[in-house]
Amino acid sequence: MQPFIFRNPTKVIFGKNAADRLPQELAAFGERVLLVYGGGSIKRTGLYDRLVRHLTQSGKKVFEVPGVMPNPRTEKVYEGIAICRSEKIDLVLAVGGGSVIDCSKMIAAGALLDGDFWEELFLNGKSLERSLPLGVILTMPATASEMNGTAVISHWEGNRKLGYADPLLHPYFSILDPVLTMTMPREQVVFGAVDMMSHVFEQYFSPPDDNNLTDELAEGLLRNIRLNLDASLADLRDYQARSNLMWDGTMALNGLLRLGKKGDWQAHKIEHALSAWYDIPHGAGLSIVHPNLLFYIRREAEAKLARYAEKVWGICPQDRTQEEMAFAGLKAMRAYFDSIGAPATLGEVGIPEEAVRDIAYSVSSAEDAGYRALDRRDVYEILKQSLTRREGLPR
Amino acid sequence: MQPFIFRNPTKVIFGKNAADRLPQELAAFGERVLLVYGGGSIKRTGLYDRLVRHLTQSGKKVFEVPGVMPNPRTEKVYEGIAICRSEKIDLVLAVGGGSVIDCSKMIAAGALLDGDFWEELFLNGKSLERSLPLGVILTMPATASEMNGTAVISHWEGNRKLGYADPLLHPYFSILDPVLTMTMPREQVVFGAVDMMSHVFEQYFSPPDDNNLTDELAEGLLRNIRLNLDASLADLRDYQARSNLMWDGTMALNGLLRLGKKGDWQAHKIEHALSAWYDIPHGAGLSIVHPNLLFYIRREAEAKLARYAEKVWGICPQDRTQEEMAFAGLKAMRAYFDSIGAPATLGEVGIPEEAVRDIAYSVSSAEDAGYRALDRRDVYEILKQSLTRREGLPR
Repeated sequence: MQPFIFRNPTKVIFGKNAADRLPQELAAFGERVLLVYGGGSIKRTGLYDRLVRHLTQSGKKVFEVPGVMPNPRTEKVYEGIAICRSEKIDLVLAVGGGSVIDCSKMIAAGALLDGDFWEELFLNGKSLERSLPLGVILTMPATASEMNGTAVISHWEGNRKLGYADPLLHPYFSILDPVLTMTMPREQVVFGAVDMMSHVFEQYFSPPDDNNLTDELAEGLLRNIRLNLDASLADLRDYQARSNLMWDGTMALNGLLRLGKKGDWQAHKIEHALSAWYDIPHGAGLSIVHPNLLFYIRREAEAKLARYAEKVWGICPQDRTQEEMAFAGLKAMRAYFDSIGAPATLGEVGIPEEAVRDIAYSVSSAEDAGYRALDRRDVYEILKQSLTRREGLPR
Repeated sequence: MQPFIFRNPTKVIFGKNAADRLPQELAAFGERVLLVYGGGSIKRTGLYDRLVRHLTQSGKKVFEVPGVMPNPRTEKVYEGIAICRSEKIDLVLAVGGGSVIDCSKMIAAGALLDGDFWEELFLNGKSLERSLPLGVILTMPATASEMNGTAVISHWEGNRKLGYADPLLHPYFSILDPVLTMTMPREQVVFGAVDMMSHVFEQYFSPPDDNNLTDELAEGLLRNIRLNLDASLADLRDYQARSNLMWDGTMALNGLLRLGKKGDWQAHKIEHALSAWYDIPHGAGLSIVHPNLLFYIRREAEAKLARYAEKVWGICPQDRTQEEMAFAGLKAMRAYFDSIGAPATLGEVGIPEEAVRDIAYSVSSAEDAGYRALDRRDVYEILKQSLTRREGLPR
């Protein structure tokens, strides 16, 4: 097993009505709390009132940053930083999915930073010396931001969507109440699950392949996401399925799946470029890009694709070559994304052919590559191949 | 998925020569370090000299508790507590396997405790308010004590071997250098792996069985332990196999496998009674008790034993009843323990028939039971059945 350093200090409180444990968790922090949330669904569902009641009964003074949208932008971060500084905020409390959490992470970090957060952290790659404490109440499982130290922010004018990671960005606590995910629209459940699967792919489809536990864990996760996504889509009120899916999302990117693996993250980088130009849902972009990327690098990834076909899809390797197994795995992946209603082509999300070149050339370089590092021409090819649905899998 | 709270703050530094990262980890702590270690193998291998060099070059003043033996006893804990108090120790540094780490945990906790550690913590179950920081350099993978908050200590005169758990017992850092495990005798490699497998069994063979990821992770671990134990026993110098096995041991009991599961721990309780009376290796006791216990509760555990046979041993369920599958799983478990040279009967570890009743009646009650809670008569039956090898599996 390759060397690694692992530490994940986030406290996870998981279960039905876990949100009502908020007062116990709040006790450790000061009284000035910045509540960060999204488009208002937490008001429609009554969650907002419930949390504000917990906060005020715990003696907290509540400030707010509402309106954080998918692909959260720098402007919202600046808005939150300004409140943290003027109101001397003690705790940032994110209520929502990955976008709200990522935005909250950068508010918490930016508030105590000398200089501009985008320039210092995202462009110059500076390490954090401190950050305001962050708590999370998760309402949409997908990104695992609730149990990692990563944030992805979009700079809309610059067409940049970039990630930043620092150990200090780990939430102090994350409350995972599966009941809160029950009001998600079907499409968000699908895109969330695609994001989870893509996180697993990025780590699984990378060297070394040396029989360490991490690949077993990745395969187990992929099987479990599928099982519980299918059950969830058959009945969105299936608590067992929704709760299992919620924990799957956290486990897909809480650091365990990278241990001993090189990792890849090129599909995510390409998707970030798509979102930075066209503001499409992250899961939709990944559903288009990831299978096409793996098809493009199929020769380098062949042995692992063959293993994927067998272990995740139960395809029998007997009487099949490794190449045939790899193709079978790729076909199963696309067929599954089709079956859950996730898109296969750029046209389905409104990205035209003429945009492909600009997008390809804005993808940041791939130093984290797994089986094969892609240059901009490769990315251009993958995006061109993502314009139309491939009938069959040509050689 | 059932509710849970999870937090594991231990920093793991894993890899070849990870021990040389000790100075970086030491920087965060004061200068007075208590080095706790075992029977002297770290002196023979040169590890002791290497660590003392790191410590002194880091400006640390080193105190020592040598001679911690397997099934560590209260006396050694008292010895360490006395030094911590008189020498104002800043950091306890455990170098060894689970016994050394567990002893070190109780030294670290006991040093800051009002009252007697055995009485207050093990007998009265008091929670910790504070504990000295603990660092670990692991030389024997087995117990996962390097990444959890549990310690098991033996009170020899009272024939009690008891466990105690508290979040404050998590090590601050644990250095996992697979090279350091290369000098383990073959028998310790085997017993360590049996302990890992038994940790997985305790959590896997328990309700609920609701398609959550934890069971997938448990099955992956069991397959991976077997794969890498076989490779290790074929060549004890196989770094890949030994390093994979090392991480398997940590993952088997760092808290992830309990999530959403009730857990059992009755086999461990019975084994603790065996060790408390006869000071046998923990892994040897588990190899005898665990298959017999699962055979004894085979009706209640039948569905899970059948799943175990299929997922861990690849036994095809076609044309087999669930009962036949469960038997096949039990047979495979015992046959595997036989193949690695782990004992099957109490006689092999020198425990006579006439001791069985006393041992059975000293097992603490089983409030943590999984599929079936055992009373003392059940434990007595299991131990009687552990006296002789069962030929075939009678109904």
